[in-house]
Amino acid sequence: MLQTQDNSFLIDCGEGTQLQLSKYKIKTGKISHIFISHLHGDHYFGLIGLLSSMSLLNRNTDLHLYGPPKLLDIINLQLDVADVNLSYTLHFHKLEEEGEIANTGKITISSFKVAHRIDCWGFLFREIKQSRSVLSEKAKSFEIPAAYFSELQKGKDYTTKKGTIISNEDVTQPAKKGRSFAYCADTLFLEHLSATVKEVDLLYHETTYLKDQEEKAASRYHSTTVQAATIAKMAKAGRLIIGHFSSKYDNVEPFLEEAKAVFENTVLAEEGTCYFL
Amino acid sequence: MLQTQDNSFLIDCGEGTQLQLSKYKIKTGKISHIFISHLHGDHYFGLIGLLSSMSLLNRNTDLHLYGPPKLLDIINLQLDVADVNLSYTLHFHKLEEEGEIANTGKITISSFKVAHRIDCWGFLFREIKQSRSVLSEKAKSFEIPAAYFSELQKGKDYTTKKGTIISNEDVTQPAKKGRSFAYCADTLFLEHLSATVKEVDLLYHETTYLKDQEEKAASRYHSTTVQAATIAKMAKAGRLIIGHFSSKYDNVEPFLEEAKAVFENTVLAEEGTCYFL
Repeated sequence: MLQTQDNSFLIDCGEGTQLQLSKYKIKTGKISHIFISHLHGDHYFGLIGLLSSMSLLNRNTDLHLYGPPKLLDIINLQLDVADVNLSYTLHFHKLEEEGEIANTGKITISSFKVAHRIDCWGFLFREIKQSRSVLSEKAKSFEIPAAYFSELQKGKDYTTKKGTIISNEDVTQPAKKGRSFAYCADTLFLEHLSATVKEVDLLYHETTYLKDQEEKAASRYHSTTVQAATIAKMAKAGRLIIGHFSSKYDNVEPFLEEAKAVFENTVLAEEGTCYFL
Repeated sequence: MLQTQDNSFLIDCGEGTQLQLSKYKIKTGKISHIFISHLHGDHYFGLIGLLSSMSLLNRNTDLHLYGPPKLLDIINLQLDVADVNLSYTLHFHKLEEEGEIANTGKITISSFKVAHRIDCWGFLFREIKQSRSVLSEKAKSFEIPAAYFSELQKGKDYTTKKGTIISNEDVTQPAKKGRSFAYCADTLFLEHLSATVKEVDLLYHETTYLKDQEEKAASRYHSTTVQAATIAKMAKAGRLIIGHFSSKYDNVEPFLEEAKAVFENTVLAEEGTCYFL
Protein backbone atom coordinates (compact mmCIF):
# COMPACT_ATOMS: atom_id res chain seq x y z
CA MET A 1 0.00 0.00 0.00
CA LEU A 2 1.18 3.47 -0.83
CA GLN A 3 -0.73 5.93 1.30
CA THR A 4 -0.83 9.68 0.83
CA GLN A 5 -2.95 12.33 2.49
CA ASP A 6 -5.64 11.90 -0.16
CA ASN A 7 -5.27 8.46 -1.66
CA SER A 8 -4.51 4.84 -0.93
CA PHE A 9 -2.84 3.02 -3.78
CA LEU A 10 -2.68 -0.76 -3.68
CA ILE A 11 0.19 -2.20 -5.66
CA ASP A 12 -0.26 -5.89 -6.48
CA CYS A 13 -2.68 -8.11 -4.59
CA GLY A 14 -1.67 -11.69 -3.77
CA GLU A 15 -4.01 -14.24 -2.21
CA GLY A 16 -5.14 -13.17 1.24
CA THR A 17 -4.49 -9.46 0.71
CA GLN A 18 -7.92 -8.58 2.07
CA LEU A 19 -7.13 -10.50 5.26
CA GLN A 20 -3.83 -8.65 5.61
CA LEU A 21 -5.54 -5.30 5.07
CA SER A 22 -7.99 -6.18 7.79
CA LYS A 23 -5.20 -7.35 10.10
CA TYR A 24 -3.41 -4.01 9.73
CA LYS A 25 -6.66 -2.04 10.01
CA ILE A 26 -6.44 -0.54 6.54
CA LYS A 27 -9.93 0.28 5.30
CA THR A 28 -10.48 -1.03 1.80
CA GLY A 29 -12.92 1.82 1.20
CA LYS A 30 -9.97 4.22 1.05
CA ILE A 31 -8.31 2.41 -1.83
CA SER A 32 -8.86 4.53 -4.94
CA HIS A 33 -6.44 2.86 -7.34
CA ILE A 34 -5.10 -0.68 -7.70
CA PHE A 35 -2.07 -1.48 -9.85
CA ILE A 36 -1.31 -5.06 -10.93
CA SER A 37 2.21 -5.50 -12.29
CA HIS A 38 1.75 -8.91 -13.93
CA LEU A 39 -0.43 -12.00 -13.95
CA HIS A 40 1.56 -14.41 -11.79
CA GLY A 41 -0.60 -15.62 -8.93
CA ASP A 42 1.43 -14.18 -6.09
CA HIS A 43 0.70 -10.73 -7.54
CA TYR A 44 -3.04 -10.92 -8.20
CA PHE A 45 -4.86 -14.01 -6.86
CA GLY A 46 -6.31 -11.91 -4.04
CA LEU A 47 -7.77 -9.29 -6.36
CA ILE A 48 -11.09 -10.91 -7.25
CA GLY A 49 -11.78 -11.54 -3.56
CA LEU A 50 -10.99 -7.94 -2.67
CA LEU A 51 -13.14 -6.55 -5.50
CA SER A 52 -16.01 -8.85 -4.45
CA SER A 53 -15.75 -7.93 -0.78
CA MET A 54 -15.77 -4.22 -1.63
CA SER A 55 -19.06 -4.86 -3.39
CA LEU A 56 -20.50 -6.89 -0.50
CA LEU A 57 -19.66 -3.91 1.71
CA ASN A 58 -21.69 -1.75 -0.71
CA ARG A 59 -18.82 0.44 -1.85
CA ASN A 60 -20.17 3.19 -4.06
CA THR A 61 -17.08 5.19 -4.97
CA ASP A 62 -15.31 4.52 -8.26
CA LEU A 63 -12.26 2.28 -8.31
CA HIS A 64 -9.47 2.52 -10.85
CA LEU A 65 -7.69 -0.69 -11.76
CA TYR A 66 -4.53 -0.90 -13.88
CA GLY A 67 -3.17 -4.16 -15.22
CA PRO A 68 -2.32 -6.31 -18.23
CA PRO A 69 -5.29 -6.50 -20.65
CA LYS A 70 -6.25 -10.09 -19.84
CA LEU A 71 -6.85 -9.20 -16.22
CA LEU A 72 -10.20 -7.76 -17.25
CA ASP A 73 -11.18 -11.03 -18.94
CA ILE A 74 -10.40 -12.93 -15.74
CA ILE A 75 -12.43 -10.57 -13.58
CA ASN A 76 -15.36 -10.44 -15.97
CA LEU A 77 -15.48 -14.24 -16.25
CA GLN A 78 -15.50 -14.64 -12.48
CA LEU A 79 -18.17 -11.99 -11.94
CA ASP A 80 -20.20 -13.49 -14.76
CA VAL A 81 -20.27 -17.07 -13.42
CA ALA A 82 -21.24 -15.77 -9.99
CA ASP A 83 -23.98 -13.61 -11.54
CA VAL A 84 -22.59 -10.62 -9.65
CA ASN A 85 -22.81 -6.92 -10.51
CA LEU A 86 -20.38 -4.80 -8.53
CA SER A 87 -21.95 -2.14 -6.33
CA TYR A 88 -19.44 0.43 -7.64
CA THR A 89 -17.94 1.48 -10.96
CA LEU A 90 -14.72 -0.28 -11.81
CA HIS A 91 -12.62 1.58 -14.35
CA PHE A 92 -10.15 -0.78 -15.94
CA HIS A 93 -7.06 0.72 -17.55
CA LYS A 94 -5.01 -1.62 -19.73
CA LEU A 95 -1.26 -1.44 -19.34
CA GLU A 96 0.08 -1.40 -22.88
CA GLU A 97 2.49 1.49 -23.22
CA GLU A 98 5.01 3.19 -20.98
CA GLY A 99 4.22 6.66 -19.67
CA GLU A 100 1.74 8.49 -17.51
CA ILE A 101 -1.27 6.34 -16.65
CA ALA A 102 -2.89 8.44 -13.91
CA ASN A 103 -2.91 11.94 -12.50
CA THR A 104 -4.85 12.67 -9.32
CA GLY A 105 -4.02 16.38 -9.44
CA LYS A 106 -1.49 15.88 -6.68
CA ILE A 107 0.31 12.76 -7.89
CA THR A 108 1.24 11.42 -11.27
CA ILE A 109 1.68 7.72 -11.84
CA SER A 110 3.70 6.30 -14.71
CA SER A 111 4.17 2.73 -15.83
CA PHE A 112 7.43 1.35 -17.18
CA LYS A 113 8.29 -2.04 -18.59
CA VAL A 114 10.45 -4.44 -16.67
CA ALA A 115 11.65 -7.84 -17.90
CA HIS A 116 9.97 -10.91 -16.47
CA ARG A 117 8.85 -14.27 -17.88
CA ILE A 118 5.56 -12.66 -18.85
CA ASP A 119 4.52 -9.08 -19.57
CA CYS A 120 5.35 -7.11 -16.41
CA TRP A 121 5.19 -3.44 -15.35
CA GLY A 122 6.81 -1.18 -12.80
CA PHE A 123 5.16 1.96 -11.42
CA LEU A 124 6.56 5.37 -10.57
CA PHE A 125 4.62 7.69 -8.26
CA ARG A 126 5.58 11.37 -8.15
CA GLU A 127 4.05 14.19 -6.19
CA ILE A 128 3.32 17.05 -8.52
CA LYS A 129 5.62 19.91 -7.68
CA GLN A 130 3.55 22.36 -5.70
CA SER A 131 3.57 26.07 -6.58
CA ARG A 132 5.82 28.52 -4.69
CA SER A 133 4.32 29.76 -1.47
CA VAL A 134 3.81 33.45 -0.94
CA LEU A 135 5.33 35.05 2.15
CA SER A 136 2.22 37.12 2.70
CA GLU A 137 3.63 39.54 5.32
CA LYS A 138 6.55 40.37 3.06
CA ALA A 139 4.35 40.69 -0.01
CA LYS A 140 2.08 43.08 1.87
CA SER A 141 5.07 45.13 2.96
CA PHE A 142 5.76 45.73 -0.75
CA GLU A 143 2.07 46.58 -1.16
CA ILE A 144 1.49 43.72 -3.58
CA PRO A 145 -2.30 43.19 -3.86
CA ALA A 146 -3.62 39.80 -2.76
CA ALA A 147 -5.21 39.42 -6.21
CA TYR A 148 -1.67 39.07 -7.60
CA PHE A 149 -0.63 36.28 -5.23
CA SER A 150 -1.58 33.54 -7.69
CA GLU A 151 0.89 35.06 -10.15
CA LEU A 152 3.58 35.12 -7.44
CA GLN A 153 2.93 31.39 -6.87
CA LYS A 154 3.77 30.82 -10.53
CA GLY A 155 7.13 32.57 -10.04
CA LYS A 156 6.35 35.95 -11.58
CA ASP A 157 7.94 39.17 -10.37
CA TYR A 158 5.78 42.21 -9.43
CA THR A 159 6.07 45.64 -10.88
CA THR A 160 4.84 48.45 -8.61
CA LYS A 161 2.90 51.46 -9.87
CA LYS A 162 6.12 53.43 -9.70
CA GLY A 163 7.81 50.88 -11.96
CA THR A 164 9.94 49.19 -9.30
CA ILE A 165 10.41 45.48 -9.87
CA ILE A 166 9.94 43.30 -6.79
CA SER A 167 11.80 40.06 -7.38
CA ASN A 168 9.65 36.97 -6.89
CA GLU A 169 12.31 35.39 -4.72
CA ASP A 170 11.97 38.24 -2.22
CA VAL A 171 8.30 37.49 -1.52
CA THR A 172 7.94 33.73 -2.01
CA GLN A 173 9.68 30.59 -1.00
CA PRO A 174 10.34 27.60 -3.26
CA ALA A 175 7.84 24.77 -3.52
CA LYS A 176 8.61 21.75 -1.44
CA LYS A 177 10.16 19.09 -3.61
CA GLY A 178 7.58 16.50 -4.60
CA ARG A 179 8.27 13.09 -3.09
CA SER A 180 8.58 9.99 -5.27
CA PHE A 181 8.33 6.21 -5.01
CA ALA A 182 9.10 3.52 -7.56
CA TYR A 183 8.01 -0.13 -7.57
CA CYS A 184 10.01 -2.33 -9.89
CA ALA A 185 7.85 -5.49 -9.60
CA ASP A 186 9.49 -8.79 -10.57
CA THR A 187 12.37 -8.29 -12.96
CA LEU A 188 15.67 -9.30 -14.37
CA PHE A 189 18.53 -6.93 -13.59
CA LEU A 190 18.00 -4.10 -16.08
CA GLU A 191 20.70 -1.46 -15.87
CA HIS A 192 18.59 1.09 -17.72
CA LEU A 193 15.97 1.01 -14.92
CA SER A 194 18.33 3.24 -12.94
CA ALA A 195 17.56 6.04 -15.42
CA THR A 196 13.81 5.38 -15.23
CA VAL A 197 13.84 5.71 -11.44
CA LYS A 198 16.58 8.37 -11.27
CA GLU A 199 16.72 10.16 -7.91
CA VAL A 200 13.55 8.55 -6.67
CA ASP A 201 13.18 9.04 -2.92
CA LEU A 202 12.10 5.49 -2.19
CA LEU A 203 12.77 2.54 -4.44
CA TYR A 204 11.32 -0.94 -4.13
CA HIS A 205 13.37 -3.50 -6.05
CA GLU A 206 13.00 -7.26 -5.80
CA THR A 207 15.86 -9.46 -4.62
CA THR A 208 14.64 -13.01 -4.99
CA TYR A 209 18.14 -14.43 -4.58
CA LEU A 210 21.45 -13.74 -2.86
CA LYS A 211 24.38 -12.60 -4.98
CA ASP A 212 25.84 -16.09 -5.45
CA GLN A 213 22.71 -17.12 -7.39
CA GLU A 214 23.11 -14.62 -10.22
CA GLU A 215 22.72 -17.21 -12.96
CA LYS A 216 19.67 -18.78 -11.40
CA ALA A 217 18.18 -15.33 -10.89
CA ALA A 218 18.70 -14.49 -14.56
CA SER A 219 17.27 -17.80 -15.74
CA ARG A 220 14.11 -17.13 -13.73
CA TYR A 221 13.87 -13.45 -14.64
CA HIS A 222 14.64 -12.31 -11.11
CA SER A 223 17.37 -10.22 -9.45
CA THR A 224 19.94 -10.59 -6.70
CA THR A 225 20.74 -8.36 -3.74
CA VAL A 226 23.74 -6.79 -5.45
CA GLN A 227 21.76 -6.13 -8.59
CA ALA A 228 18.93 -4.40 -6.72
CA ALA A 229 21.40 -2.31 -4.74
CA THR A 230 23.28 -1.43 -7.93
CA ILE A 231 20.11 0.01 -9.45
CA ALA A 232 19.56 2.08 -6.29
CA LYS A 233 23.16 3.31 -6.33
CA MET A 234 23.18 4.18 -10.04
CA ALA A 235 19.81 5.92 -9.67
CA LYS A 236 21.04 7.88 -6.62
CA ALA A 237 17.86 6.77 -4.87
CA GLY A 238 17.13 8.07 -1.39
CA ARG A 239 16.34 4.68 0.11
CA LEU A 240 15.97 1.11 -1.13
CA ILE A 241 13.41 -1.44 0.04
CA ILE A 242 14.20 -5.01 -0.94
CA GLY A 243 11.72 -7.89 -0.94
CA HIS A 244 10.29 -10.92 -2.78
CA PHE A 245 12.83 -13.22 -1.13
CA SER A 246 12.76 -16.81 -2.37
CA SER A 247 10.99 -19.08 0.11
CA LYS A 248 14.01 -21.37 0.09
CA TYR A 249 15.78 -18.93 2.44
CA ASP A 250 14.82 -19.21 6.11
CA ASN A 251 16.91 -16.24 7.17
CA VAL A 252 16.71 -12.98 5.25
CA GLU A 253 19.40 -11.05 7.14
CA PRO A 254 22.07 -11.93 4.52
CA PHE A 255 19.91 -10.12 1.95
CA LEU A 256 20.22 -6.93 3.95
CA GLU A 257 23.96 -7.33 4.49
CA GLU A 258 24.70 -7.96 0.84
CA ALA A 259 22.57 -5.06 -0.37
CA LYS A 260 23.94 -2.63 2.22
CA ALA A 261 27.50 -3.41 1.10
CA VAL A 262 26.56 -1.80 -2.25
CA PHE A 263 23.89 0.71 -1.14
CA GLU A 264 23.94 1.57 2.54
CA ASN A 265 20.45 3.03 2.85
CA THR A 266 18.65 -0.29 2.34
CA VAL A 267 15.85 -1.83 4.39
CA LEU A 268 14.04 -5.17 4.24
CA ALA A 269 10.40 -5.22 3.17
CA GLU A 270 8.80 -6.65 6.28
CA GLU A 271 5.16 -7.57 6.72
CA GLY A 272 3.20 -4.93 8.56
CA THR A 273 5.95 -2.32 8.51
CA CYS A 274 5.41 1.30 7.46
CA TYR A 275 8.13 3.25 5.66
CA PHE A 276 7.71 7.03 5.85
CA LEU A 277 8.70 9.67 3.33
CA MET B 1 -11.54 -31.60 4.48
CA LEU B 2 -12.91 -35.10 4.68
CA GLN B 3 -10.11 -37.45 5.63
CA THR B 4 -10.20 -41.23 5.42
CA GLN B 5 -7.46 -43.78 5.84
CA ASP B 6 -6.62 -43.58 2.15
CA ASN B 7 -7.80 -40.25 0.86
CA SER B 8 -8.13 -36.59 1.64
CA PHE B 9 -11.10 -34.92 0.00
CA LEU B 10 -11.25 -31.15 -0.08
CA ILE B 11 -14.77 -29.77 -0.30
CA ASP B 12 -14.90 -26.15 -1.47
CA CYS B 13 -11.91 -23.87 -1.33
CA GLY B 14 -12.39 -20.23 -0.32
CA GLU B 15 -9.65 -17.61 -0.44
CA GLY B 16 -6.82 -18.47 1.92
CA THR B 17 -7.58 -22.20 2.08
CA GLN B 18 -3.94 -23.04 1.44
CA LEU B 19 -2.94 -20.90 4.41
CA GLN B 20 -5.49 -22.67 6.60
CA LEU B 21 -4.26 -26.09 5.47
CA SER B 22 -0.75 -25.05 6.37
CA LYS B 23 -1.90 -23.69 9.74
CA TYR B 24 -3.53 -27.02 10.62
CA LYS B 25 -0.60 -29.02 9.24
CA ILE B 26 -2.60 -30.74 6.52
CA LYS B 27 -0.30 -31.69 3.68
CA THR B 28 -1.74 -30.64 0.33
CA GLY B 29 0.05 -33.58 -1.29
CA LYS B 30 -2.48 -35.92 0.33
CA ILE B 31 -5.46 -34.28 -1.33
CA SER B 32 -6.61 -36.60 -4.11
CA HIS B 33 -9.99 -35.06 -4.95
CA ILE B 34 -11.38 -31.53 -4.76
CA PHE B 35 -15.10 -30.82 -4.99
CA ILE B 36 -16.38 -27.30 -5.73
CA SER B 37 -20.09 -26.90 -5.02
CA HIS B 38 -20.64 -23.61 -6.88
CA LEU B 39 -18.90 -20.57 -8.27
CA HIS B 40 -19.45 -17.98 -5.55
CA GLY B 41 -16.14 -16.63 -4.41
CA ASP B 42 -16.31 -17.83 -0.80
CA HIS B 43 -16.41 -21.38 -2.18
CA TYR B 44 -13.60 -21.31 -4.75
CA PHE B 45 -11.40 -18.16 -4.80
CA GLY B 46 -8.62 -20.11 -3.06
CA LEU B 47 -8.58 -22.90 -5.63
CA ILE B 48 -6.30 -21.40 -8.26
CA GLY B 49 -3.74 -20.55 -5.58
CA LEU B 50 -3.86 -24.06 -4.16
CA LEU B 51 -3.53 -25.67 -7.59
CA SER B 52 -0.60 -23.36 -8.40
CA SER B 53 1.17 -24.04 -5.12
CA MET B 54 0.83 -27.80 -5.59
CA SER B 55 2.65 -27.33 -8.88
CA LEU B 56 5.36 -25.13 -7.36
CA LEU B 57 5.89 -27.94 -4.85
CA ASN B 58 6.36 -30.29 -7.83
CA ARG B 59 3.38 -32.52 -7.10
CA ASN B 60 3.38 -35.42 -9.51
CA THR B 61 0.31 -37.42 -8.50
CA ASP B 62 -2.95 -36.95 -10.36
CA LEU B 63 -5.60 -34.66 -8.92
CA HIS B 64 -9.32 -35.00 -9.55
CA LEU B 65 -11.37 -31.83 -9.57
CA TYR B 66 -15.17 -31.70 -9.67
CA GLY B 67 -17.10 -28.52 -10.29
CA PRO B 68 -19.48 -26.56 -12.50
CA PRO B 69 -18.27 -26.58 -16.13
CA LYS B 70 -17.10 -22.97 -16.22
CA LEU B 71 -14.62 -23.62 -13.42
CA LEU B 72 -12.33 -25.20 -15.99
CA ASP B 73 -12.47 -22.06 -18.17
CA ILE B 74 -11.46 -19.94 -15.19
CA ILE B 75 -8.54 -22.19 -14.30
CA ASN B 76 -7.34 -22.52 -17.87
CA LEU B 77 -7.47 -18.77 -18.43
CA GLN B 78 -5.44 -18.12 -15.28
CA LEU B 79 -2.84 -20.78 -16.09
CA ASP B 80 -2.65 -19.50 -19.65
CA VAL B 81 -1.96 -15.85 -18.81
CA ALA B 82 0.72 -16.93 -16.33
CA ASP B 83 2.26 -19.23 -18.96
CA VAL B 84 2.14 -22.08 -16.44
CA ASN B 85 1.94 -25.82 -17.04
CA LEU B 86 1.01 -27.77 -13.93
CA SER B 87 3.56 -30.30 -12.73
CA TYR B 88 0.78 -32.90 -12.34
CA THR B 89 -2.24 -34.14 -14.25
CA LEU B 90 -5.45 -32.38 -13.34
CA HIS B 91 -8.55 -34.37 -14.23
CA PHE B 92 -11.52 -32.07 -14.43
CA HIS B 93 -14.96 -33.62 -14.01
CA LYS B 94 -17.89 -31.39 -14.90
CA LEU B 95 -20.87 -31.47 -12.57
CA GLU B 96 -23.87 -31.72 -14.82
CA GLU B 97 -26.04 -34.59 -13.62
CA GLU B 98 -26.93 -36.08 -10.28
CA GLY B 99 -25.49 -39.48 -9.36
CA GLU B 100 -22.19 -41.22 -8.74
CA ILE B 101 -19.25 -39.08 -9.78
CA ALA B 102 -16.35 -41.02 -8.20
CA ASN B 103 -15.51 -44.41 -6.77
CA THR B 104 -12.16 -44.96 -5.10
CA GLY B 105 -12.83 -48.66 -4.50
CA LYS B 106 -13.53 -47.91 -0.85
CA ILE B 107 -15.74 -44.86 -1.12
CA THR B 108 -18.37 -43.72 -3.56
CA ILE B 109 -19.12 -40.07 -4.05
CA SER B 110 -22.39 -38.80 -5.49
CA SER B 111 -23.48 -35.32 -6.41
CA PHE B 112 -26.94 -33.96 -5.90
CA LYS B 113 -28.53 -30.66 -6.84
CA VAL B 114 -29.37 -28.09 -4.22
CA ALA B 115 -31.10 -24.76 -4.84
CA HIS B 116 -29.00 -21.61 -4.75
CA ARG B 117 -28.87 -18.39 -6.73
CA ILE B 118 -26.58 -20.11 -9.22
CA ASP B 119 -26.01 -23.77 -10.16
CA CYS B 120 -24.98 -25.51 -6.91
CA TRP B 121 -24.21 -29.09 -5.87
CA GLY B 122 -24.15 -31.16 -2.71
CA PHE B 123 -21.97 -34.22 -2.22
CA LEU B 124 -22.62 -37.55 -0.52
CA PHE B 125 -19.71 -39.75 0.53
CA ARG B 126 -20.38 -43.41 1.38
CA GLU B 127 -17.97 -46.10 2.39
CA ILE B 128 -18.57 -49.14 0.24
CA LYS B 129 -20.03 -51.88 2.39
CA GLN B 130 -17.18 -54.22 3.17
CA SER B 131 -17.55 -58.00 2.76
CA ARG B 132 -18.48 -60.23 5.75
CA SER B 133 -15.52 -61.26 7.83
CA VAL B 134 -14.75 -64.96 8.32
CA LEU B 135 -14.48 -66.29 11.88
CA SER B 136 -11.50 -68.43 10.92
CA GLU B 137 -11.34 -70.61 14.07
CA LYS B 138 -14.98 -71.51 13.67
CA ALA B 139 -14.65 -72.13 9.94
CA LYS B 140 -11.70 -74.43 10.59
CA SER B 141 -13.69 -76.33 13.20
CA PHE B 142 -16.14 -77.18 10.39
CA GLU B 143 -13.17 -78.12 8.20
CA ILE B 144 -13.97 -75.46 5.63
CA PRO B 145 -10.90 -75.02 3.40
CA ALA B 146 -9.22 -71.59 3.43
CA ALA B 147 -9.64 -71.51 -0.36
CA TYR B 148 -13.40 -71.14 0.22
CA PHE B 149 -13.12 -68.18 2.57
CA SER B 150 -13.59 -65.64 -0.23
CA GLU B 151 -16.97 -67.29 -0.95
CA LEU B 152 -17.88 -67.06 2.73
CA GLN B 153 -17.08 -63.33 2.63
CA LYS B 154 -19.66 -62.98 -0.12
CA GLY B 155 -22.24 -64.62 2.16
CA LYS B 156 -22.36 -68.13 0.69
CA ASP B 157 -23.06 -71.22 2.79
CA TYR B 158 -20.68 -74.20 2.72
CA THR B 159 -21.62 -77.79 1.88
CA THR B 160 -19.36 -80.45 3.40
CA LYS B 161 -18.30 -83.64 1.57
CA LYS B 162 -20.96 -85.46 3.53
CA GLY B 163 -23.61 -83.03 2.25
CA THR B 164 -24.11 -81.09 5.48
CA ILE B 165 -24.84 -77.40 4.93
CA ILE B 166 -22.91 -75.03 7.19
CA SER B 167 -24.83 -71.77 7.37
CA ASN B 168 -22.79 -68.74 6.44
CA GLU B 169 -23.96 -66.94 9.57
CA ASP B 170 -22.37 -69.60 11.75
CA VAL B 171 -18.87 -68.90 10.43
CA THR B 172 -18.85 -65.20 9.53
CA GLN B 173 -19.89 -61.95 11.04
CA PRO B 174 -21.62 -59.10 9.21
CA ALA B 175 -19.63 -56.38 7.48
CA LYS B 176 -19.22 -53.22 9.44
CA LYS B 177 -21.70 -50.68 8.21
CA GLY B 178 -20.07 -48.21 5.79
CA ARG B 179 -19.90 -44.71 7.19
CA SER B 180 -21.38 -41.76 5.32
CA PHE B 181 -21.11 -37.99 5.15
CA ALA B 182 -23.18 -35.46 3.24
CA TYR B 183 -22.35 -31.86 2.41
CA CYS B 184 -25.34 -29.75 1.38
CA ALA B 185 -23.43 -26.65 0.26
CA ASP B 186 -25.41 -23.36 0.10
CA THR B 187 -29.09 -23.97 -0.33
CA LEU B 188 -32.65 -23.00 0.19
CA PHE B 189 -34.60 -25.27 2.53
CA LEU B 190 -35.44 -28.28 0.34
CA GLU B 191 -37.55 -30.83 2.13
CA HIS B 192 -36.68 -33.55 -0.38
CA LEU B 193 -33.00 -33.34 0.57
CA SER B 194 -33.88 -35.37 3.65
CA ALA B 195 -34.49 -38.36 1.33
CA THR B 196 -31.24 -37.76 -0.56
CA VAL B 197 -29.22 -37.83 2.67
CA LYS B 198 -31.37 -40.43 4.44
CA GLU B 199 -29.69 -42.01 7.48
CA VAL B 200 -26.38 -40.35 6.71
CA ASP B 201 -24.02 -40.59 9.70
CA LEU B 202 -22.80 -37.03 9.50
CA LEU B 203 -24.64 -34.23 7.77
CA TYR B 204 -23.32 -30.76 7.03
CA HIS B 205 -26.12 -28.30 6.34
CA GLU B 206 -25.78 -24.54 6.10
CA THR B 207 -27.60 -22.21 8.49
CA THR B 208 -26.86 -18.73 7.29
CA TYR B 209 -29.64 -17.21 9.41
CA LEU B 210 -31.48 -17.74 12.67
CA LYS B 211 -35.06 -18.93 12.55
CA ASP B 212 -36.62 -15.47 12.72
CA GLN B 213 -35.05 -14.64 9.33
CA GLU B 214 -36.84 -17.30 7.33
CA GLU B 215 -38.03 -14.90 4.64
CA LYS B 216 -34.65 -13.28 4.23
CA ALA B 217 -33.04 -16.72 4.07
CA ALA B 218 -35.41 -17.79 1.31
CA SER B 219 -34.91 -14.60 -0.67
CA ARG B 220 -31.17 -15.18 -0.61
CA TYR B 221 -31.37 -18.91 -1.28
CA HIS B 222 -30.09 -19.80 2.19
CA SER B 223 -31.47 -21.75 5.17
CA THR B 224 -32.20 -21.15 8.83
CA THR B 225 -31.23 -23.17 11.90
CA VAL B 226 -34.65 -24.80 12.18
CA GLN B 227 -34.65 -25.70 8.51
CA ALA B 228 -31.22 -27.36 8.69
CA ALA B 229 -32.20 -29.27 11.82
CA THR B 230 -35.47 -30.32 10.21
CA ILE B 231 -33.57 -31.91 7.32
CA ALA B 232 -31.37 -33.78 9.82
CA LYS B 233 -34.41 -34.95 11.79
CA MET B 234 -36.39 -36.07 8.76
CA ALA B 235 -33.32 -37.85 7.35
CA LYS B 236 -32.67 -39.55 10.71
CA ALA B 237 -29.07 -38.38 10.41
CA GLY B 238 -26.56 -39.44 13.02
CA ARG B 239 -25.17 -35.99 13.65
CA LEU B 240 -25.61 -32.52 12.17
CA ILE B 241 -22.87 -29.94 11.63
CA ILE B 242 -24.14 -26.43 10.99
CA GLY B 243 -22.11 -23.60 9.48
CA HIS B 244 -21.96 -20.72 6.97
CA PHE B 245 -23.28 -18.28 9.56
CA SER B 246 -23.95 -14.79 8.25
CA SER B 247 -21.16 -12.39 9.24
CA LYS B 248 -23.78 -10.05 10.71
CA TYR B 249 -23.98 -12.30 13.79
CA ASP B 250 -21.22 -11.79 16.35
CA ASN B 251 -22.35 -14.66 18.55
CA VAL B 252 -23.13 -18.04 17.01
CA GLU B 253 -24.35 -19.78 20.18
CA PRO B 254 -28.02 -19.04 19.35
CA PHE B 255 -27.54 -21.06 16.14
CA LEU B 256 -26.66 -24.09 18.21
CA GLU B 257 -29.53 -23.60 20.64
CA GLU B 258 -32.12 -23.20 17.90
CA ALA B 259 -30.91 -26.21 15.94
CA LYS B 260 -30.63 -28.43 19.02
CA ALA B 261 -34.24 -27.67 19.91
CA VAL B 262 -35.20 -29.52 16.71
CA PHE B 263 -32.31 -32.00 16.38
CA GLU B 264 -30.36 -32.61 19.56
CA ASN B 265 -27.22 -34.08 18.06
CA THR B 266 -26.05 -30.84 16.44
CA VAL B 267 -22.62 -29.22 16.58
CA LEU B 268 -21.23 -25.93 15.26
CA ALA B 269 -18.73 -26.01 12.41
CA GLU B 270 -15.75 -24.40 14.08
CA GLU B 271 -12.46 -23.51 12.44
CA GLY B 272 -9.76 -26.06 13.08
CA THR B 273 -12.06 -28.62 14.71
CA CYS B 274 -12.08 -32.32 13.77
CA TYR B 275 -15.31 -34.33 13.87
CA PHE B 276 -14.78 -38.08 14.04
CA LEU B 277 -16.91 -40.87 12.62
